[in-house]
Amino acid sequence: MINQQIVLVRRPDGMPVAADFAFVEAPVAPLAAGEVCVQMQLLGLEPAARPRMNAGSKYSRTVDIGGVVPSTGIGVIVGSRCDGYREGDHVFVQSGWQRYFVVNASEARLIEPARAPLPKWLSLLGLSSFTAFIGITELARPNPDETVVVSAASGATGAVAGQIARIMGARAVGIAGGADKCRHAESLGFEACIDYRDPTFASQLDAACPDGIDVDFENVGGLLLDAVIPRMNRFGRVILCGLVAEYNLATAPRGPNLWPAVYNSLRIEGFLASRYFSRIPEFIDTALRWSHAGLLRHAEHIVRGMENVPAAFLDLLNGRHIGKVIVEL
Amino acid sequence: MINQQIVLVRRPDGMPVAADFAFVEAPVAPLAAGEVCVQMQLLGLEPAARPRMNAGSKYSRTVDIGGVVPSTGIGVIVGSRCDGYREGDHVFVQSGWQRYFVVNASEARLIEPARAPLPKWLSLLGLSSFTAFIGITELARPNPDETVVVSAASGATGAVAGQIARIMGARAVGIAGGADKCRHAESLGFEACIDYRDPTFASQLDAACPDGIDVDFENVGGLLLDAVIPRMNRFGRVILCGLVAEYNLATAPRGPNLWPAVYNSLRIEGFLASRYFSRIPEFIDTALRWSHAGLLRHAEHIVRGMENVPAAFLDLLNGRHIGKVIVEL
Repeated sequence: MINQQIVLVRRPDGMPVAADFAFVEAPVAPLAAGEVCVQMQLLGLEPAARPRMNAGSKYSRTVDIGGVVPSTGIGVIVGSRCDGYREGDHVFVQSGWQRYFVVNASEARLIEPARAPLPKWLSLLGLSSFTAFIGITELARPNPDETVVVSAASGATGAVAGQIARIMGARAVGIAGGADKCRHAESLGFEACIDYRDPTFASQLDAACPDGIDVDFENVGGLLLDAVIPRMNRFGRVILCGLVAEYNLATAPRGPNLWPAVYNSLRIEGFLASRYFSRIPEFIDTALRWSHAGLLRHAEHIVRGMENVPAAFLDLLNGRHIGKVIVEL
Repeated sequence: MINQQIVLVRRPDGMPVAADFAFVEAPVAPLAAGEVCVQMQLLGLEPAARPRMNAGSKYSRTVDIGGVVPSTGIGVIVGSRCDGYREGDHVFVQSGWQRYFVVNASEARLIEPARAPLPKWLSLLGLSSFTAFIGITELARPNPDETVVVSAASGATGAVAGQIARIMGARAVGIAGGADKCRHAESLGFEACIDYRDPTFASQLDAACPDGIDVDFENVGGLLLDAVIPRMNRFGRVILCGLVAEYNLATAPRGPNLWPAVYNSLRIEGFLASRYFSRIPEFIDTALRWSHAGLLRHAEHIVRGMENVPAAFLDLLNGRHIGKVIVEL
């Protein structure tokens, strides 16, 4: 059986280009005891793959030159040497960009397609959404009527973070790039969503947050974080989920001035969702309940064909999509 | 009765100069019900007075032009209209730079001179030391064998932070400016103290922290914080107590790059000791016990005469002193 993979052939210099990736074919490895072979049906693309392409990345594991580019995915088991995993079972895996994935079964999570259509297991129920769930419920813990600002508010993580904040009784204010994305976030229940490209961004942010900002769920960093931190209220929480504004910069830029963190007793906290994977079953039950109640919605941007994965990823880094970017193989 | 005060006559442009302050005399106000009049005997100088001199300071209350410069102090009650406060009682107050202080008794804390000499109530038992106690025991909570870095390690707060970290079983590594201050910190039990002015500062920091840094108790900011953050271990805590490196800058400088906070799940947290004043009695009992056991020592730099207060304060901002700077009136 021949596998098709997209591998990293050189480390991107700034924004990745198509030539940083290559399509390769290789035989699918034989199964060792405890392993399963998954035929991938859907891939979920994540901006977090970008920092892992840098040499010596400390964010999760660095992608080797020649290594498969990381992503989440949904597939069907086509071979198993592990009890409890049968051919035909569907699993969620961190497969990377490839058609077949041979992995220890402990790293494949069985899903129940009867509970939700397959793409939902990457969007509503996927890693981006889980990350938002953890950031809001575990770290930010907004109180009712607090103001929660979410950057990249129309993205797969930001859109969920704002909706969960709202479910908890807080006011969600989004920040996004462009009118379409802002209107989308508002359609999901953000009280307002502000276009950071607008020259009046700062005054719009003031108007949308008349009582200041209590929580910032940060996916972007850069000028957005600079604008938010001085507007934080005492005991505010800045949850650092990602800093996509700097993923393509050659050198790490300086960050926001931290004096407001002293005088306003702010907590600025980064996290990786992997620490909280034991909460995934609870998350899936909760997200499905919220979804059925109409409280939590999730857009998907579906792309077809493995040949389109690199371009879809570059569009994602350039902020051209709304919702979770999913590739159907 | 005539009061002597040192007031702010103009807002400092960068580092304060003597002409920013003026000595004034004014009658001591008559006592209202509930008030006491305190004759100040000792003043404790704090760098935190500096940011409060800026227009629109958000750090505690801004000092008005013509207002008394803030400080802590110990004095004796010479007039009382409040039950429970008698003439001759000693109190800890936030008097500012003046000889007499009329204040509501609720803002005067009775001290017990029999338990410790008067200057100790500003040094070992004072606000700087309490701030270190809160920062380490409440926010940083170092585990045994963790590495705790403390900047301004020979100062009134830093020296205590490092010693408390050590009492809790952690390794304390100091950063200070100049060999004398570093040797002083080491004499207090810091395992090492590194001179940030030394060109080999970064490699010395690496050598002193072979297992990385788990806690940073930050009094300085600037280049020191830049050096520490990339060396933090996963789940590290950066406790922002003060940022004296930027107190005299005309515009707020940019801060450290925050990407390590994401990939290492760091918590960066500012605090004000005032939130925790209910823990002062516990702190005093604990600090005295540690002191009697030889575990917690505190240097004092004593200056005599009110006329020398501004110069002592400028020396403090310039890092010329070791320990708590106290003025005997």
